[in-house]
Amino acid sequence: MQQWLDGYDDRDWQTIEDGTVRYALVGIGWWTRDVAIPAIERSEFGEVAVLVSSSTEKAERIADEENVERGISYEQYHEGAAADDYDAVYVGTPNAYHREYVETAADLGKAVLCEKPMEATVERAEAMVEHCEDADVPLMIAYRMHTEPAVRRARELIENGFIGEPATVQGHNSQRLLEMIPDPDQWRLDPDVSGYGTSVMDLGIYSINTTRYLLGREPVAVESRMSSLHDAFEDVPDERSSSLLAFEDDVRMVTTTSQNAQVDTQLKITGTEGQIELDPAFHGECSLRLTRGDLVVDIDHREFDAEREVLELFDYFSDRVLGDAEIGPDGRHGLADMRIIRAIHESAETGEPVELR
Amino acid sequence: MQQWLDGYDDRDWQTIEDGTVRYALVGIGWWTRDVAIPAIERSEFGEVAVLVSSSTEKAERIADEENVERGISYEQYHEGAAADDYDAVYVGTPNAYHREYVETAADLGKAVLCEKPMEATVERAEAMVEHCEDADVPLMIAYRMHTEPAVRRARELIENGFIGEPATVQGHNSQRLLEMIPDPDQWRLDPDVSGYGTSVMDLGIYSINTTRYLLGREPVAVESRMSSLHDAFEDVPDERSSSLLAFEDDVRMVTTTSQNAQVDTQLKITGTEGQIELDPAFHGECSLRLTRGDLVVDIDHREFDAEREVLELFDYFSDRVLGDAEIGPDGRHGLADMRIIRAIHESAETGEPVELR
Repeated sequence: MQQWLDGYDDRDWQTIEDGTVRYALVGIGWWTRDVAIPAIERSEFGEVAVLVSSSTEKAERIADEENVERGISYEQYHEGAAADDYDAVYVGTPNAYHREYVETAADLGKAVLCEKPMEATVERAEAMVEHCEDADVPLMIAYRMHTEPAVRRARELIENGFIGEPATVQGHNSQRLLEMIPDPDQWRLDPDVSGYGTSVMDLGIYSINTTRYLLGREPVAVESRMSSLHDAFEDVPDERSSSLLAFEDDVRMVTTTSQNAQVDTQLKITGTEGQIELDPAFHGECSLRLTRGDLVVDIDHREFDAEREVLELFDYFSDRVLGDAEIGPDGRHGLADMRIIRAIHESAETGEPVELR
Repeated sequence: MQQWLDGYDDRDWQTIEDGTVRYALVGIGWWTRDVAIPAIERSEFGEVAVLVSSSTEKAERIADEENVERGISYEQYHEGAAADDYDAVYVGTPNAYHREYVETAADLGKAVLCEKPMEATVERAEAMVEHCEDADVPLMIAYRMHTEPAVRRARELIENGFIGEPATVQGHNSQRLLEMIPDPDQWRLDPDVSGYGTSVMDLGIYSINTTRYLLGREPVAVESRMSSLHDAFEDVPDERSSSLLAFEDDVRMVTTTSQNAQVDTQLKITGTEGQIELDPAFHGECSLRLTRGDLVVDIDHREFDAEREVLELFDYFSDRVLGDAEIGPDGRHGLADMRIIRAIHESAETGEPVELR
C-alpha cells in the first residue's frame, strides 16, 4: 500500500530525461491564459514561445503581459510567421476553428496538440486527421484525463481485475455555463462554432472518453434524449442530455449532462467484483474511491488541480514529441468520440437507437 | 438548522395517537423473519398475530420460534382460518404469488400491505387492484422509501425549490444476488415467478419509484438495454440493465442495475440551482447530500437501518388503517411502476423507445 501510494502520481509514461518543446498557443481565451500558460511555464519539457490571436496588436499585448517572446496574428500564423521559434502547436480555439490551425501546423511540419472535441463535425475532424497523416505530422487530442494519476491508477486496477468484469458505468457532468461565462451569445451556444450541440460536446465527452480509456472498450450503440429549455439554449438541442451507451462485452453505460445545472462530475464503473468511482471526476478535481466487497478506500489527491492536470498533459505530449514513443490519444482516437457524439445527437433527433458499427 | 435536524425523522405523516393493527404475515422468507417481524414487534401500532406459510406444520413451528400466537397454512388462510385474529395482511411472497393472497385478504375484508413489485405482470397487477377496489379494501404497496426520513426531507426540499428545476436524475442499484442467496434456482431468476425479469423488477424499481416520489412527476417514455451473461441468469434477460427515462418537464433520468455486481446504491437529482443525492440510497442505508452552489451538506442518519425503515413503513400503514387519512402509495401507484418496468423490458427486447402514454 505504501509503495502504491508513493507511486500514485509517478510519470509511468515518461521516456525522456531532458529537452524542451517550444509551443505556439493558438486561441487565447481564459483557459489558455489562466490554466495552460501557467501550466506550461511550470512544466519540465515545455515553454511558451509564441501566442497567436486575432490581431497582431492583441497577440503582442498579451504576449507582453504573459512574458512570452512573440505575439502574432492568426493571419501571420497561417503565413508561417515565427515558425522557427516554435516546435509544436497547441490549438485551444472554439471547436469549428480547430481544423484550419491544425492544418497550417501540419503544413509547417509542427506537431499538434488539439483541444477536445477535436472539431465541430465528424467530416471536418476526418479531413483534419487525413491532412495530418498526409503531412506525416503527429496529432494528439488533449484528453487530459489520460494523464490524470487517479485515472491511470484506476485503469491499471481495472486491467488487473480489481472490479472483476465491468458491468455498468454511470457518468455525469454538469455546470452552470451562463454563470461561468455570462454571455448568452458565447460560442458554446452557437452550433456553427460548437458543432452538434453544447453539453455532450463540451461535458459528455469527458464521461465517454474516460470510459473508453478506462475500459479499453468501445461503444457499439447509443440511445439518447436531450432538451433545451432556457432561452439562451434555443439554438442548441442539448442544454441537458441523457444517453445510453452499449459498450463491447455488454458493458452498459449511462450518462447525463447539463450546461445549466449545479456543478457536478462523477464517473462510476461497477464490476462483478468491485467498483471504481471518480467523484469528483473531471476538471482538475479527481478523487478516487475503490470498493471491493465490504472494503472502501478513498484517495484524495490534494493539491492536484486543473493546472497540474494540464502540466502533466503538456509534459506527456512533449515527451512524445521529443522521444520515440508512440503519440496518443491520436486523431483517430478523437475521431471515434466525434462519431459517438454525432450518433448521440442523431438518436435524440430521430428517437431511435444508433449503431456505431 | 438545529430545528431542521431535530425534526429530521419526525413522523410528519402521523395522524393517530394509539391503536393496534394485528398483522397476518404471508410468506415467511429471510426478509420477513430477519427484518419484518422484529420491525413490527418494535413498532408502535402493529403486532404480529398470524404467520402464514406452506404447511401448517412449518407455520406453527416458525410461529413458535418467533413467539407469534398462530401459524396457519396457505390453504387454511384461503379458507379464512384465524380471520378474527388479524386486521391486516402483509404479503411478502415471491412476486407471482402476491395476487392470490391479496385477493383472499380482500375477500376477507382485510387491509393489505403488498410487497413491491406488486406482481409478476401488469395484467395480474391490474386484476389485483380491481379486485381490491371491488371489495372496497385498502391496498398499499410497500414502498418503504416513502417513509424513509432522508427521502421525505429530500422531497420537501425539492418541492420548496432547493435544487431549482430538476434537470437530470441518476439511479443505480446493484448487488451480488448469488452471494446473498447462493441458489441458482431461486425464484428471482425464474421468470414464471419473478415476472419480466430480475434486476429491474427487484432493484431498478427503487430508483424509478423513489424518483417518481421525489419529483412528483411521471416518466413519459423509456429506452433500455439489458443483458445476462452468467449461467444462472440464462432464463432472465436482465442480469444487468441500463435505461433512459424521460420524465415530465424534460427531466432526464438514467438508471443502471445489476444482480451480479458489487453492492452499490445511489440516487442523484441535479437541478438548475442545486443537487440532492442519496448515497447509499436504498436497503436501509440512506445518507443525504445536499449541494447548492459551492456549499455541500452531508447528513448521515446513524442507527437508522433496514429494520427501522420497515418499522416506519408498518407504523405508517397502521396509521392509515386505524385513522382516516388516505392510504398510499396505493395499488394504482404500484401499477404505474409495473407498466414502466414492462415498457423497459419491451424496449430492451425491440431495441426501440416505448412511450408510456
